[in-house]
Amino acid sequence: MPRCWYFVKRPVGPVTEGCFELREIESRPLKDGSVRVANRWLSVDPSVRWRMDAETPLPPLPLGGKLNGPALGEVVESRSAQFHVGDVVTHLAGWRDEAVLPAEALQRVPDIPVPESAFLGVLGYPGVTAYFGLYDVARVRPGDVVFISAGGGAVGTAAIQMAKAGGMTVVASAGGPEKCALARKLGADVTIDYKGGLPIATALREAAPSGIDVYFDNVGGDHLDAALATAKKGARFAICGMVSGYNSRSREPIPHLDRIISAGITLKGFEVFSFADRLAEFYEVAGQWIHRGALTNVETVRHGLENTPQAFLGLFTGENLGKLVVCL
Amino acid sequence: MPRCWYFVKRPVGPVTEGCFELREIESRPLKDGSVRVANRWLSVDPSVRWRMDAETPLPPLPLGGKLNGPALGEVVESRSAQFHVGDVVTHLAGWRDEAVLPAEALQRVPDIPVPESAFLGVLGYPGVTAYFGLYDVARVRPGDVVFISAGGGAVGTAAIQMAKAGGMTVVASAGGPEKCALARKLGADVTIDYKGGLPIATALREAAPSGIDVYFDNVGGDHLDAALATAKKGARFAICGMVSGYNSRSREPIPHLDRIISAGITLKGFEVFSFADRLAEFYEVAGQWIHRGALTNVETVRHGLENTPQAFLGLFTGENLGKLVVCL
Repeated sequence: MPRCWYFVKRPVGPVTEGCFELREIESRPLKDGSVRVANRWLSVDPSVRWRMDAETPLPPLPLGGKLNGPALGEVVESRSAQFHVGDVVTHLAGWRDEAVLPAEALQRVPDIPVPESAFLGVLGYPGVTAYFGLYDVARVRPGDVVFISAGGGAVGTAAIQMAKAGGMTVVASAGGPEKCALARKLGADVTIDYKGGLPIATALREAAPSGIDVYFDNVGGDHLDAALATAKKGARFAICGMVSGYNSRSREPIPHLDRIISAGITLKGFEVFSFADRLAEFYEVAGQWIHRGALTNVETVRHGLENTPQAFLGLFTGENLGKLVVCL
Repeated sequence: MPRCWYFVKRPVGPVTEGCFELREIESRPLKDGSVRVANRWLSVDPSVRWRMDAETPLPPLPLGGKLNGPALGEVVESRSAQFHVGDVVTHLAGWRDEAVLPAEALQRVPDIPVPESAFLGVLGYPGVTAYFGLYDVARVRPGDVVFISAGGGAVGTAAIQMAKAGGMTVVASAGGPEKCALARKLGADVTIDYKGGLPIATALREAAPSGIDVYFDNVGGDHLDAALATAKKGARFAICGMVSGYNSRSREPIPHLDRIISAGITLKGFEVFSFADRLAEFYEVAGQWIHRGALTNVETVRHGLENTPQAFLGLFTGENLGKLVVCL
């Protein structure tokens, strides 16, 4: 019997394993136009934490319902002419080992020679987020000084490489020496260890003495404030995550918010889904970068469906390097 | 002897009259290329408060130096071929009754039939701020629901009229029934009295049940948070002032800041000076609006140079309707 994780308890404060329950699900026969996928890789993502609250700006997860998220698998049965047994596809019915979906909900992975889990990482949502965040939302230009927070995470590792591929100077923050070393290996010119004791604002001022042109924000909070304090005139901020607020619900004041006036800063929030119709452009560019060795997938792998919640909790203690995936 | 206000004490907390001192200044003979102006109207502006702090994102006012700000006057002596006795000009050497300036620092007022103090109001910086904030920074479109805070102030009264002239629906907030009545008279479709007891977030949700497309922010704080909570997908915010923070230095958290991600909101800060090279465009459009009665100057007049600090303090207790000017 296939199994799926259910959302059984709303977290009060930090999320715990008790919020999840693994249950068997029926292996339904396929309807016309549907496809059965054996999942091989699951993605766990910080935004799920946000959707676990009753009041959330994202569509909330119904209590008692199935969890979901990006996944990659192989078609094992098909009643659609579009997909055949053996096709490798991505979809959004993760947190389970078998997914039954209408053909419209599946994407065949593009023909780029990478290990397949990369389609959940640097060639999946994190990569798409990094690419459009930099090149569309923040409109980076060669020579820009770009500050990237959470530089050791899924989006951050992609953004560092993509900014370097485009000729920018990169300052990356990450938690701890291991992640900082990773960020430098990926091309970051300067790294800031935000667990290193120095206030992030001080560290950023030292790292970018003449200021930053672009901030790619994955965390919000003190990082956002430091970026505001350090921004050059006309700086552009792409705001894609505020993970620092997801778990605690404590929202810090942003004392330098008024610099958006005096420095004429643009803050632009975005979600990856708004770029769903521009994936061809992304695969084109990212494929070339991969081909010439400028872009690589960075991932941390956990094993087994039963360990998915544990993998998810690890996102908030920051134990992952790059994209955190579960291998089934 | 001409007189000028000096900045003699940095405020700790709210600014007081003791921060200012009126002194006689020398009536210097003119150098080649200079012009002597007898000021007739002075502008007092909230941004001066900001510049009184030692740490400020704006150029700080040097302690012991002259105060300054927009002013309008008449040329009484000229050693420049560009200006003649009797010319009416605006410049930035306010807070005094006589200004001696190089010709480059003066602007002749355009030929638009309005009482001359309007060139410090709806045809001066407040009008320029409102116009470019709406039409350039926030890119308003006919049919947009536009929320304007401080709708009874200098920028707000201009913005309400300019938004209505362009076919938008306007929700304006203002403090007290008198300012709300003024905002409605100027065309606001709905007004919110933020001193009326209802939290601004609740009031805005009622005033714009299907959300806002644009927020023209003059105050920051709880207004900005309410606007974030109420913004439609893709909303554009023009951030031009955060007067709520000027005096108190207490920076409130903005709990709904994360909506800029989920709703894809753009926050763009700006200062009026960045549009200095586009004044011809502004006068062209504003002149037409004035001609067809769609735009009018709203002002509160105080009298006498000696009452300038008192007029300035009034900005923070919100006693002015429209632009606060001092008539000499």
